[in-house]
Amino acid sequence: MPASFQSNRDKRIEGYNTAPESTCVVPLITQGVLKDFVKRIFVATGSGEVEAELVAEYLVRANLSGVDSHGIIRIPDYVQMVEEGRMHPNVVPRVVRDRGAMATVDAGLGYGQVGAKMAMELAIAKAREHGVGTVSVFNCNHAGRIAEYPLLAAENDMVGILMVKAFGAIVAPWGGRGRILSTSPMSFAIPAKTEPPIVADFATSISAEGKIRVKNARGEKIPFGWVLNSEGKPTDDPADLYNGGALVTFGESKGYALNLLMEAMGAALSGAGILSSFSGSNGVFAMAVDIGSFSDPEEFKENIDRMIKTIRASQPAEGVKEVLIPGDPEAREAKRRMANGIAVEDKTWDRVVAVATKYRVETPRVSPSPAVPH
Amino acid sequence: MPASFQSNRDKRIEGYNTAPESTCVVPLITQGVLKDFVKRIFVATGSGEVEAELVAEYLVRANLSGVDSHGIIRIPDYVQMVEEGRMHPNVVPRVVRDRGAMATVDAGLGYGQVGAKMAMELAIAKAREHGVGTVSVFNCNHAGRIAEYPLLAAENDMVGILMVKAFGAIVAPWGGRGRILSTSPMSFAIPAKTEPPIVADFATSISAEGKIRVKNARGEKIPFGWVLNSEGKPTDDPADLYNGGALVTFGESKGYALNLLMEAMGAALSGAGILSSFSGSNGVFAMAVDIGSFSDPEEFKENIDRMIKTIRASQPAEGVKEVLIPGDPEAREAKRRMANGIAVEDKTWDRVVAVATKYRVETPRVSPSPAVPH
Repeated sequence: MPASFQSNRDKRIEGYNTAPESTCVVPLITQGVLKDFVKRIFVATGSGEVEAELVAEYLVRANLSGVDSHGIIRIPDYVQMVEEGRMHPNVVPRVVRDRGAMATVDAGLGYGQVGAKMAMELAIAKAREHGVGTVSVFNCNHAGRIAEYPLLAAENDMVGILMVKAFGAIVAPWGGRGRILSTSPMSFAIPAKTEPPIVADFATSISAEGKIRVKNARGEKIPFGWVLNSEGKPTDDPADLYNGGALVTFGESKGYALNLLMEAMGAALSGAGILSSFSGSNGVFAMAVDIGSFSDPEEFKENIDRMIKTIRASQPAEGVKEVLIPGDPEAREAKRRMANGIAVEDKTWDRVVAVATKYRVETPRVSPSPAVPH
Repeated sequence: MPASFQSNRDKRIEGYNTAPESTCVVPLITQGVLKDFVKRIFVATGSGEVEAELVAEYLVRANLSGVDSHGIIRIPDYVQMVEEGRMHPNVVPRVVRDRGAMATVDAGLGYGQVGAKMAMELAIAKAREHGVGTVSVFNCNHAGRIAEYPLLAAENDMVGILMVKAFGAIVAPWGGRGRILSTSPMSFAIPAKTEPPIVADFATSISAEGKIRVKNARGEKIPFGWVLNSEGKPTDDPADLYNGGALVTFGESKGYALNLLMEAMGAALSGAGILSSFSGSNGVFAMAVDIGSFSDPEEFKENIDRMIKTIRASQPAEGVKEVLIPGDPEAREAKRRMANGIAVEDKTWDRVVAVATKYRVETPRVSPSPAVPH
């Protein structure tokens, strides 16, 4: 048995679109300085203060949590999309249908963070009034680290759930070999009383694409069961994914079924299509469940606390140091990086600095970090 | 890679509480005759016509679908619970909180099928009015094969989702070895246009307990990764589960996170406790999402059709005959058994007949079935 969450966290740290390749000296930067820098880049590329602040906040918080794949590594992509007119700064998402506990929202191809946050906030407002709120969003760009949105619900004594249809067909249906499905993730957050909320955020594929990409770049093998080659055979060669192979769903037929649920709720529900006919890069279904409508929220949170404490106090499996709660690895990493600074691999930093330079944004001084755990 | 859904279906066919052990001649019975027999048993043990009809219908439909673990094998347990006063016939579930799109329901320790069906029907009615409906149920007994309830939503052009807290602590948290969690299942159904709905129904443990029980009874090994022994080591000996071992969650830390969501939504939300302090055998969270509120339901169903057809037409992985959709195995088995009759293993049949005899219910004539695939 792999050590607890470690394998999962590694996948996420290394991301799925691009990934650290440098292993030498990299810039080390505090979150406050980094966030200010990132915000200035977005202001320079056309975003208003509030939008720039939001996107910077969520990107840097992803880095802080160790989810570097959803951090500042995205900046060059975002800016390129804005330059090419595929993403528009300062779009106000528009409610196109609104009825009781639900709404459908056109995010207008603005920043996905704006669309997804607005959706969850609307779901929360509706949950406050109706006990539950659900909002479906289309024309939504990449929304960053999606755990941010269910956490908004948890802060309001609600259970938050996000179901997302992701962009790109790279995942095979269980039993198949075709690149038909996406890595479509889901996320949820459950509030506790004295403990931090339980937070889960995972792809419905067994591995992130970026994890395979990194292994490929490094000439390393992958475990059998992650990727099928173009002949539909399990392979340990990451290059096979890029030669007509496909990623496998997590948890065999169960993750496959959940992947189809993401297609239905994230893509089809808003009317924006399905599979490769889906338009937009993230289709979002946001849901908030108001605990206080169902029962006593304090008792609920005490029960969640009790569950968390029972699990933490329980005996680990062989080879595992301690039993963790979903959200623990990110919270611990955030504590570490809050104290020690965020290390950014050279390649990513150089690309971000290039964007900043192009838009005449001053780059902050950073310290060299001789030992980076990636 | 195992052949598509086969491994999963086998688990479900063999159930989790009791399981077929006979391999010789067993009774073969048509569903109509079986349902009438089962209904008469429940009428004889105190249920009104409607309740007896419902419970018989769902139990026999589980057998028909190949999910024998949730079929008539449950009858002796149900009757015993009624005799011991732990389950009450003819209880009308009571709405204790009702606010807009949500309700909390006390199922009064009646038949779980009655409570869960009422919950989904109420969720559907609320979804019709508010776009979404969510109902949390406590004091709910075993609800049978839970796919039945989301299917009610799908019949109404809604996506139906059921999250259930199951009885009994037998599952370890990911990274742990303690028997803390349950096999808590979830189920959902997504309506299509010309295709049957997509239906998923699975435990958040990697294997059903009954599957291990059968292997143990037969002296067979289990795959490493299903069970940890009392020392927290992976084992291939099914007996280890019954000597202080624990079941593992499906999909590593992802299924573990979903298991905690079932605890939160199925148990804590209604205020009925959590983990082993939870009272009742099934805690149910029923949700219906009205597609027509969000977008055009015909277009939605056409999109689901397109996805189903694309997947079915796609190339299978090596060693797999065809790519299936969640719900296919059960639908095919139902077709086969509808034509050929339902085979019931001797031990189960004898136990059901014993209950019938005790309550002076006439047992129908059944044919011997020389070759039963179990």
